[in-house]
Amino acid sequence: MEISSDLLIGKQSVHGTNGAIKGVDAATGEPLAPAFGGATLAQLEDACALAWAASDVYRELPLETRARFLETIAQNILDIGDVLIERCVAESGLPRGRIEGERGRTVGQLRMFAAVVREGDFLGVRIDPAQPQRQPLPRVDLRLRYVPLGPVAVFGASNFPLAFSVAGGDTASAFAAGCPVIAKAHSAHPGTSALVGAAVQKAVADCGLPEGTFSLLFDSGRDIGQGLVSDRRIKAVGFTGSRGGGTALMKLAAARREPIPVYAEMSSINPVLLFPNALKNRGAAIGKAFASSLALGAGQFCTNPGLVLAVDGPDLDAFIQATSAALADIPAATMLTPGIHRAYVSALGKTAEHSDVKTLARGGEAKGATQGQAALFSTTAAAFRANAELQEEIFGAASLIVRCPDLATLFDLIEELEGQLTAALHIDEADYADAAKILPALERRTGRILVNGFGTGVEVGHAMVHGGPFPSTADGRSTSVGSLAIDRFLRPVSYQDMPDALLPDALKTENPLGLNRRIDGKLQLSK
Amino acid sequence: MEISSDLLIGKQSVHGTNGAIKGVDAATGEPLAPAFGGATLAQLEDACALAWAASDVYRELPLETRARFLETIAQNILDIGDVLIERCVAESGLPRGRIEGERGRTVGQLRMFAAVVREGDFLGVRIDPAQPQRQPLPRVDLRLRYVPLGPVAVFGASNFPLAFSVAGGDTASAFAAGCPVIAKAHSAHPGTSALVGAAVQKAVADCGLPEGTFSLLFDSGRDIGQGLVSDRRIKAVGFTGSRGGGTALMKLAAARREPIPVYAEMSSINPVLLFPNALKNRGAAIGKAFASSLALGAGQFCTNPGLVLAVDGPDLDAFIQATSAALADIPAATMLTPGIHRAYVSALGKTAEHSDVKTLARGGEAKGATQGQAALFSTTAAAFRANAELQEEIFGAASLIVRCPDLATLFDLIEELEGQLTAALHIDEADYADAAKILPALERRTGRILVNGFGTGVEVGHAMVHGGPFPSTADGRSTSVGSLAIDRFLRPVSYQDMPDALLPDALKTENPLGLNRRIDGKLQLSK
Repeated sequence: MEISSDLLIGKQSVHGTNGAIKGVDAATGEPLAPAFGGATLAQLEDACALAWAASDVYRELPLETRARFLETIAQNILDIGDVLIERCVAESGLPRGRIEGERGRTVGQLRMFAAVVREGDFLGVRIDPAQPQRQPLPRVDLRLRYVPLGPVAVFGASNFPLAFSVAGGDTASAFAAGCPVIAKAHSAHPGTSALVGAAVQKAVADCGLPEGTFSLLFDSGRDIGQGLVSDRRIKAVGFTGSRGGGTALMKLAAARREPIPVYAEMSSINPVLLFPNALKNRGAAIGKAFASSLALGAGQFCTNPGLVLAVDGPDLDAFIQATSAALADIPAATMLTPGIHRAYVSALGKTAEHSDVKTLARGGEAKGATQGQAALFSTTAAAFRANAELQEEIFGAASLIVRCPDLATLFDLIEELEGQLTAALHIDEADYADAAKILPALERRTGRILVNGFGTGVEVGHAMVHGGPFPSTADGRSTSVGSLAIDRFLRPVSYQDMPDALLPDALKTENPLGLNRRIDGKLQLSK
Repeated sequence: MEISSDLLIGKQSVHGTNGAIKGVDAATGEPLAPAFGGATLAQLEDACALAWAASDVYRELPLETRARFLETIAQNILDIGDVLIERCVAESGLPRGRIEGERGRTVGQLRMFAAVVREGDFLGVRIDPAQPQRQPLPRVDLRLRYVPLGPVAVFGASNFPLAFSVAGGDTASAFAAGCPVIAKAHSAHPGTSALVGAAVQKAVADCGLPEGTFSLLFDSGRDIGQGLVSDRRIKAVGFTGSRGGGTALMKLAAARREPIPVYAEMSSINPVLLFPNALKNRGAAIGKAFASSLALGAGQFCTNPGLVLAVDGPDLDAFIQATSAALADIPAATMLTPGIHRAYVSALGKTAEHSDVKTLARGGEAKGATQGQAALFSTTAAAFRANAELQEEIFGAASLIVRCPDLATLFDLIEELEGQLTAALHIDEADYADAAKILPALERRTGRILVNGFGTGVEVGHAMVHGGPFPSTADGRSTSVGSLAIDRFLRPVSYQDMPDALLPDALKTENPLGLNRRIDGKLQLSK
């Protein structure tokens, strides 16, 4: 399959004339053909107009059509075959196995949302039947369903070229909710984006949907991304990236005539808490597992364990020793882009030179120009407290161990952390009582709390929360992974005394869609 | 019962020393004793510190305790007796019957949320059990529940001194979610606020809750309200008031180091659409009902019908005639405050003098200095389009009829309206086909669509949405009335591989709370 360098604007493939974006082989730094044309503001306008026109139509198509659309995208992505894998490996520098796995995850997500759409619980149907005889006033008939927000702008992520980009979790959940999507390709993987975009565009045609249901834009600067977020027809934003990028979009969205929700997944250092008994009994084993998690995918995960908190002493030393030994055996790995590699090297340098920080260990040495070498640092609790910059995320395989004088100090540090995607507790049964004490503080500032594991490896399921208070995300009331992600793109509407003939099928008295419903406040299953 | 002029800071009653706030008899303009002391920044700090300390404790008390707390507040409000009614009538200028009804609504809301808490569906429990045998990787055990956001700032509303103030819908839903509340009394009804605040403070003590679960502050300026929204320990804001006030709070909240959600219910003109057949067959009857809705409570409802759209012609004239006749018979009514009365009179004057607006009718003449006289205006579709100011809410019993040349123009006007709380369709069966065409546009910009009725009279139930896209509210994904309002103060947290001993009761395998749960994506009722 040839890779088209065109923008996808509805059913059209149009060359962008606003500058060019080239993919780069992450391992060699060599540019990859073709040159993708950046969208002009006029082309952005076309995409927004088409998305707006599609919105009312797409959202009221039968749920079965919407589900099949998601499944068709999944199949079309698989049908691209090896071209997609090879291009994605080249553009991301990630190993083939990882990219194949990520394709599986992407396809799995789309299919999961198809099942969610068919089941229909996301419609949140509530019916309070009329009570004409009620005193002193009759009660009206009220029915509620959730409707989609409208067209959604999705920004591709550098670190998940498939699972969180053009047809990734944001797009899948927005489509599932009934929203058209305009995707902005990440400049780190334009070829991957083009291939996946064509698969989505084809699915729109295969399923006979309005063409504006999907568009894909390349952006040679920032105008198109910013223009998207500011366009009056865009009603929500999905973004995975840096804190700077995410907060810039939050500000743009808040400054609109009609502010809109931004779901930006941004920055997290994912504290790992080593409790005394676990550390004593299993320190070396935990250290080995920690090193693997830290170095996985060159450390380029939002859930990378960037911070370890433990009570100082010989047990911690043993953990450090095991971690260091394991890290030394882990080869350096190609990072996603030369820019990300530069930022990583610079952040490592600053940390290593910090007067309060010791470098404990490094991973295998870099062999290519853009390879990232893992790094393990330590500091004291007092220094961690005194230096806010030590709380900043380093995007890559770096982690900071904070030596705490006692558990009480460790708990105090937790209270000073910003919002996080995850926190991991390593505990044995003898630690449970202490762990229980810190759980409330963790619940307040994280989206997921895990026991005897690490945050990398985000299961796509129904009970997953990949979210958390600011700055880990822009909106701590949401998750960007898992079936609950659909809720981000919905809002409730109530219908009062509306005749059945005018009600949407989801709310008709006879329940033609066979939905679970809340009647007079009580949940009733359809079967 | 004597009315204390003190701030309520946890279990303390403390006199505020930052200026004074006096209630005013709305009908006479005479000041009412006592003078309430405004909170200082130090007193605000005390309230925030107590709320923060209470938060972790309050949220993990048994649901039954939380439910009983809500019911105790309800009973304590009833126990105040006539003192509350009299004070509230004096401060608001609203008739006794309305205030008695509003007390019933307030008590009913608290009891409804007690039932919601006992039932527990708001916890949104999801469990994806582990699959240790799954290939290529075992699946972890994931469990999800919603947790409260933390302390909530509630701003009392001028127009609902009971149902949307100190112990109104925002407070009740925040308490139900598990959040402590710091209420800022509205300066229009400090005595009412003090009486209700004391009832809540007593309920905290009656139920043995941490004292910081509730505080009540008076604000002699804006520092306390702004300080509340900016305080790091406040995690969400509930507000009902003007567009200017609400957007100012939105800006403050967005500018925080950690931005927080603001649920501001602000401004809506609640379009009424008169369809041709209904207008022809029942125009006079609709006009009479419209006049009643328009003048209800001196028009001081968020859902007041401020805009009527209809096709011009003799049927519309008949509707106008009936409305005008009915309005003339409706006596002017005392408005909530002299300031609100002044703003109403000024807005009426501007509208009446507008070169594109005709005054069609007035209500009964004002007899007191602060009485508002209803007003009915008309304009053309072209003028409505050309003059954005005609879309602005006039807070009071004023409405603007837009004479449209045809239904297509009427539909075009809908697309130009800002977000609304409600839209009302007046239709006969012969209008259904036309009504169906405009429903999508109404769903996009309103929270509630009603048929053959008016938006005033907001049922407190499970299927109510009192919300809508900006500027009707700050966050169109929410409702401030009805049981769904609890969702505003919750966020999901996921627990991975956590032993039962550490899991909250809501997530334990044996389901000790008897909750409905979503297991592996499938909803299962507990009974």
